[in-house]
Amino acid sequence: MTAHKELTIGLFGFGVVGEGLYKVLEKTPSLKARIKKVCIKNPEKKRQAPASLFTTEKNELLNDSSINVIVEVIDDADAAFQIVSTALKNGKNVVSASKKMIAEHLQELLRLQQQTGQSFLYESAACASIPVIRNLEEYYDNDLLHSIKAIVNGSTNFILTKMFEEGLDFRQALILAQQLGFAESNPKLDVEGFDAVNKWTFLLTHAYGIVIRPDEVLFNGIQNINAGDATVAREKNQQIKLVAQAKKLQNGKVAAFVMPQFINHDDHLAFVKNEYNGVVIESGFADKQFFYGKGAGSLPTASAVLSDIAALRYDYHYEYKKLYHHRPHELSNDLYLRTYVSFDDWSYVPRDDFEWIEEWHAGEERKYFVGVIAFEKLLKNTWWKENNTSLILAGDPIIESIELRNVKKKSLELAGII
Amino acid sequence: MTAHKELTIGLFGFGVVGEGLYKVLEKTPSLKARIKKVCIKNPEKKRQAPASLFTTEKNELLNDSSINVIVEVIDDADAAFQIVSTALKNGKNVVSASKKMIAEHLQELLRLQQQTGQSFLYESAACASIPVIRNLEEYYDNDLLHSIKAIVNGSTNFILTKMFEEGLDFRQALILAQQLGFAESNPKLDVEGFDAVNKWTFLLTHAYGIVIRPDEVLFNGIQNINAGDATVAREKNQQIKLVAQAKKLQNGKVAAFVMPQFINHDDHLAFVKNEYNGVVIESGFADKQFFYGKGAGSLPTASAVLSDIAALRYDYHYEYKKLYHHRPHELSNDLYLRTYVSFDDWSYVPRDDFEWIEEWHAGEERKYFVGVIAFEKLLKNTWWKENNTSLILAGDPIIESIELRNVKKKSLELAGII
Repeated sequence: MTAHKELTIGLFGFGVVGEGLYKVLEKTPSLKARIKKVCIKNPEKKRQAPASLFTTEKNELLNDSSINVIVEVIDDADAAFQIVSTALKNGKNVVSASKKMIAEHLQELLRLQQQTGQSFLYESAACASIPVIRNLEEYYDNDLLHSIKAIVNGSTNFILTKMFEEGLDFRQALILAQQLGFAESNPKLDVEGFDAVNKWTFLLTHAYGIVIRPDEVLFNGIQNINAGDATVAREKNQQIKLVAQAKKLQNGKVAAFVMPQFINHDDHLAFVKNEYNGVVIESGFADKQFFYGKGAGSLPTASAVLSDIAALRYDYHYEYKKLYHHRPHELSNDLYLRTYVSFDDWSYVPRDDFEWIEEWHAGEERKYFVGVIAFEKLLKNTWWKENNTSLILAGDPIIESIELRNVKKKSLELAGII
Repeated sequence: MTAHKELTIGLFGFGVVGEGLYKVLEKTPSLKARIKKVCIKNPEKKRQAPASLFTTEKNELLNDSSINVIVEVIDDADAAFQIVSTALKNGKNVVSASKKMIAEHLQELLRLQQQTGQSFLYESAACASIPVIRNLEEYYDNDLLHSIKAIVNGSTNFILTKMFEEGLDFRQALILAQQLGFAESNPKLDVEGFDAVNKWTFLLTHAYGIVIRPDEVLFNGIQNINAGDATVAREKNQQIKLVAQAKKLQNGKVAAFVMPQFINHDDHLAFVKNEYNGVVIESGFADKQFFYGKGAGSLPTASAVLSDIAALRYDYHYEYKKLYHHRPHELSNDLYLRTYVSFDDWSYVPRDDFEWIEEWHAGEERKYFVGVIAFEKLLKNTWWKENNTSLILAGDPIIESIELRNVKKKSLELAGII
């Protein structure tokens, strides 16, 4: 059993996460991790640390051979990628919290890790305080992961909770989330699902060895969910959550997407409220497992960064076992989804795209139906992101094959509603 | 990045867990783990595997140099210790599910691991499918673990759930648990808290570096909980759960115990029903994290054993970082507990032991009070395990110092109830 090594850290970013981290490391000498220099953008800002600690020159950190770890908690994805890639090439281990950067440069970052042999850890980039990457990487490192279903964006979950439980409207809830520090500086990233799909991209790598770009994944946010949808959910004793999901299909491939879903009140994910995140894993024999913790906010993020730093003392690397040591899984688009669609105007809904309709409702102002549609069709034509149309997955949404079902295709005309 | 090594397994035990494991490994050649020989006690029993696989001679496995992993899933703690210690000495890695054996021989097993350098993994021994040991060992490997609170015994949790939610009496619920395979062959181990305290013993080692014998820990089971206690809980909108708890105190030491507790309906542990287990971890910054999964039954146990086997392919060892690399924590008995005590007869209750009484109730048949008592006094005099007396922790049960509270000691005489 080897003792751990001492870490000398170069820190990029001194916002709430960076400053929190600095304070903890100061207070915890037993961690044997010391911040030598902090690179910041704005030297004029008043900070709670000695002035000698700060620089605006990134190479003071990246070229300092006594610094063996770079920790990067800045908000600019392009700058973050420059920092991370240079640090790895310069022989430093790196801890990062930049989900957008990781998702968009995943392939290059994988290659850089292989080329340099350096460790690149980013537990804080997904589900903040929940050790989901570490568990997927280390514990479920076999072929038996049947499915994973998660709430990975604390900000949208906070907004939906406030809308559902306290009757706030969307805008009020968003402002509250921003005030509490649960939302990205650009709310579009959270609200329209970009943040969630970014996280899902690299979680799919750790879960199934899939390497994919975020724009190749079917996703949406919560921007189109309205009061009528919430009413429908309440009537069915359900909630609406933004859910990232992946499931191994009978054909051996994996279906994956990030979409709003109706969730039963007894679903594990219904337990996940406000800024919390939750992950439900189904694996061979173990049935369902559920991990739950704070998914947004500066302190939970700092705690995950700290755990990565602690792991570097033992030279921990992600091994990407599912990618390199197993036969990686492929994504499949060969499936169908059960969807609830609400809309003002029929003319924006390509009704012929649906295989069948299971339920329909037409009220004075708003109409909705529940129907089954091919995954491919949703990927190719994103009418459902526009024209005040709201598409939410419903029931058990994944249908692997419609040939197995003896269901007569009912047209909406037959149903007599238009 | 190194590829994993091939494992040749000698398996002890072919009950539901052992047989399940055999079937999975047969079906999953990608795991590169093959069972070469299975040692069983009764050769007459009909089994679903080729006869040539079995032997009753343990040395056929322990002395076979081609076997590099021993997996032990038998029900006899003494035999299990002989097998495990011999296997480690013979240069084999070992996976075990025997919590009783591990708890009772913890110190020797720690020494054997250091002496032999072999890996000894036992994730399945606590909380079955929840990777609690791996997470304590790897992820919370710093000084920031404030507290850990868990339901670690699926059998008692199943019984309590059936009593509370379906109105079964204790005996009916126990029989049902046994029929479903959630109870140890000797129900006393579960019901009287021995199984839970055994698990808690080695979880304390992974959480805080504490090495202690099970009989040194304050514990009880659910054997004295009766219908009246359940009624009191319901009236307060609470449940009763058997909870294992450890908390870092202000004096830097750790308080630990396994006791029945009243749990609020919004406590994470209230979510844990039937045979499930749950673990709530509070750490610096991360606030509360919650892990949930099946804690009993053959398949969840087999799944954890399988994860340990998978980890051995990468030479994974527990490093016992809190014990060897940090200053291990000490247990403290210098605290007070808030307790609910129900009883038939005052004469069995040493009322002068209580610092103060907060609430009392005397009905026709049964009486109860809520009072605060020194931890030491409960440890030394176990009147509360006998005479049909039921002691359940209540409220926020840990009180670090009573001097801080300006509470007048009220005697029961003053309260006018006797």
